[in-house]
Amino acid sequence: MCGGVGSRFWPYSREERPKQFIDFLGTGRSLLQMSYDRILPIVPKENIVVVTNARYESLIREQLPDIQPHNILLEPARRNTAPCIAWAAYHIRALDPEASMIVTPSDHLITGETVFADCVNRGFDFVERNDALLTLGITPTRPDTGYGYIQIGRETAPEISTVKTFTEKPNLELAKVFLASGEFFWNAGIFLWRASAIIEALHKYDPDLTDLFDKGIESFGTPAEKGFITANFASCNGNSIDYAVMEKAKNVYVECANFAWNDLGTWSALYDNSTKDGDANVVRDARVIAYDATGNMIAVPSGKLVVVNGIRDYIIADTGDVLLVCPKSEEQSIKQMVSDVRMKYGEELL
Amino acid sequence: MCGGVGSRFWPYSREERPKQFIDFLGTGRSLLQMSYDRILPIVPKENIVVVTNARYESLIREQLPDIQPHNILLEPARRNTAPCIAWAAYHIRALDPEASMIVTPSDHLITGETVFADCVNRGFDFVERNDALLTLGITPTRPDTGYGYIQIGRETAPEISTVKTFTEKPNLELAKVFLASGEFFWNAGIFLWRASAIIEALHKYDPDLTDLFDKGIESFGTPAEKGFITANFASCNGNSIDYAVMEKAKNVYVECANFAWNDLGTWSALYDNSTKDGDANVVRDARVIAYDATGNMIAVPSGKLVVVNGIRDYIIADTGDVLLVCPKSEEQSIKQMVSDVRMKYGEELL
Repeated sequence: MCGGVGSRFWPYSREERPKQFIDFLGTGRSLLQMSYDRILPIVPKENIVVVTNARYESLIREQLPDIQPHNILLEPARRNTAPCIAWAAYHIRALDPEASMIVTPSDHLITGETVFADCVNRGFDFVERNDALLTLGITPTRPDTGYGYIQIGRETAPEISTVKTFTEKPNLELAKVFLASGEFFWNAGIFLWRASAIIEALHKYDPDLTDLFDKGIESFGTPAEKGFITANFASCNGNSIDYAVMEKAKNVYVECANFAWNDLGTWSALYDNSTKDGDANVVRDARVIAYDATGNMIAVPSGKLVVVNGIRDYIIADTGDVLLVCPKSEEQSIKQMVSDVRMKYGEELL
Repeated sequence: MCGGVGSRFWPYSREERPKQFIDFLGTGRSLLQMSYDRILPIVPKENIVVVTNARYESLIREQLPDIQPHNILLEPARRNTAPCIAWAAYHIRALDPEASMIVTPSDHLITGETVFADCVNRGFDFVERNDALLTLGITPTRPDTGYGYIQIGRETAPEISTVKTFTEKPNLELAKVFLASGEFFWNAGIFLWRASAIIEALHKYDPDLTDLFDKGIESFGTPAEKGFITANFASCNGNSIDYAVMEKAKNVYVECANFAWNDLGTWSALYDNSTKDGDANVVRDARVIAYDATGNMIAVPSGKLVVVNGIRDYIIADTGDVLLVCPKSEEQSIKQMVSDVRMKYGEELL
């Protein structure tokens, strides 16, 4: 899944070039390319399907030249994850009715690729033998209040359990209780299932969506698919797969995973996952002289000199045409700021 | 006088293009051009002499195309105001032994040009009739601790008095007393005198300097002047005219002036003299959205969007290659920062 706009990372993440297409960690590979590299040892490249917004077609082709054009599904509109996943599932099932699939965002940070591969292979094994919708739960390492949590129930296979509850963004007190209990795992938004299983669940819990896709059932996997999607995809209701299916279905399981994971959802997350300099500032690509300035996340055009004095725990993000100076503690309001920019100055700087 | 580097306004004021050459107030004219415009009604343009550092010759020619090249005195080295003024005085006296002159910095803000012209003309009248070194004293409007003050003595002509004391940068308590007394005026660094009078005073109080210039006495006003200066100017000791002469000479007078004046010595001074937006931010040339952000001096490349959150009374100065974020209260350390930049990264960004 590669169609998001990453507005919480504005002004670095822009509608024309969202977060997943940026070399956010300074590794020389974009987050999308790092996701591709991670999946390639598990899924043959001819079976890797990228679902994205139509406007990013050329970015995908440029960054993932090994992906065949017919494996790039171009959404004509943004409708959140449920329609995106439904389309991918109909597409894959048409090519192979028995296919199982992993659904993964393209803009997360995951390290420990062998642990990741072992985990995914174990998950495939489970969903191929069971009528199961499997979500990966990451063993939490801190009482993070920005993530969703999954409470596990009964273990039904090694590392795989039933789900008791899904909880969105708890407060700190609750997050601490979750962490101490050992029963709660971070919801990574990475799913494994047979294509037929998720379509069956969508029939049950989001029939409007499957009614729409079923109208084009003959087209999937054929040259007619593109025309059907162009004509119909925008009619889907925007909905997340968590809300549409995962929080409702009875055959949901969680696989407890130990790879290091971060959704890089915010500047603070990027700060936390980056190497700090001697002043505890994180500096992407710049030269910095800091006076009484610590804990800042500084991202500016390559080679720029930044002199900061008397500023702590701020985001300083400069893209040449936009400069954002904002406390890390206020980063949840960046979405609002982006909306204000749209109101005041139009689309150009989004 | 147009040869300074204006390092307190770094990164906007750069060695390659110091403050006086910049359209600092967004009027469409640089501070130098505004100074020229102000003098032009008083001094015929063929009598306006610009003294600057040799490296700024092309900037002067570009910004003041009406100044004849022989009226641009190019210093081969920076030696503060005493050698600069001495050269100009020797040059002017050679062309007209009876000439009187006004010496003025090119990077100050002055409004009320008619009041200014009246004041200067009254001053010329005084120095032409008296053996006097006249300095302009600005009626203070606030207890500024960044300026030098002149205490006036006995009034010897309308608005013109003898000088009791010169006082550099008083503390706030003292500055308040000065303001209340009505006896203290800001030292604007603008001087009027006959060329022969200042040379005579230099002979008395800075004989090393006049010894040096006297060696080339035959060259001034001739094609040989340039060669003499090239060979000798760098041997002058750097010294300010205030220290060399004004604080020592007995024939110093002050003319009390009422035009609005600011030396634009600091970002705060620019802030104080600029129009504020609804959040009390001063914004040069940019588009700004401010959240809980007031009292800031924001200068960024033309048209750039700045989004600031939770930041008060800061300087945010972005020149494309350099970004400075610094509390206004820390601006006296900008010179030190520039020095640190030189140490760490060399001359390129100065």
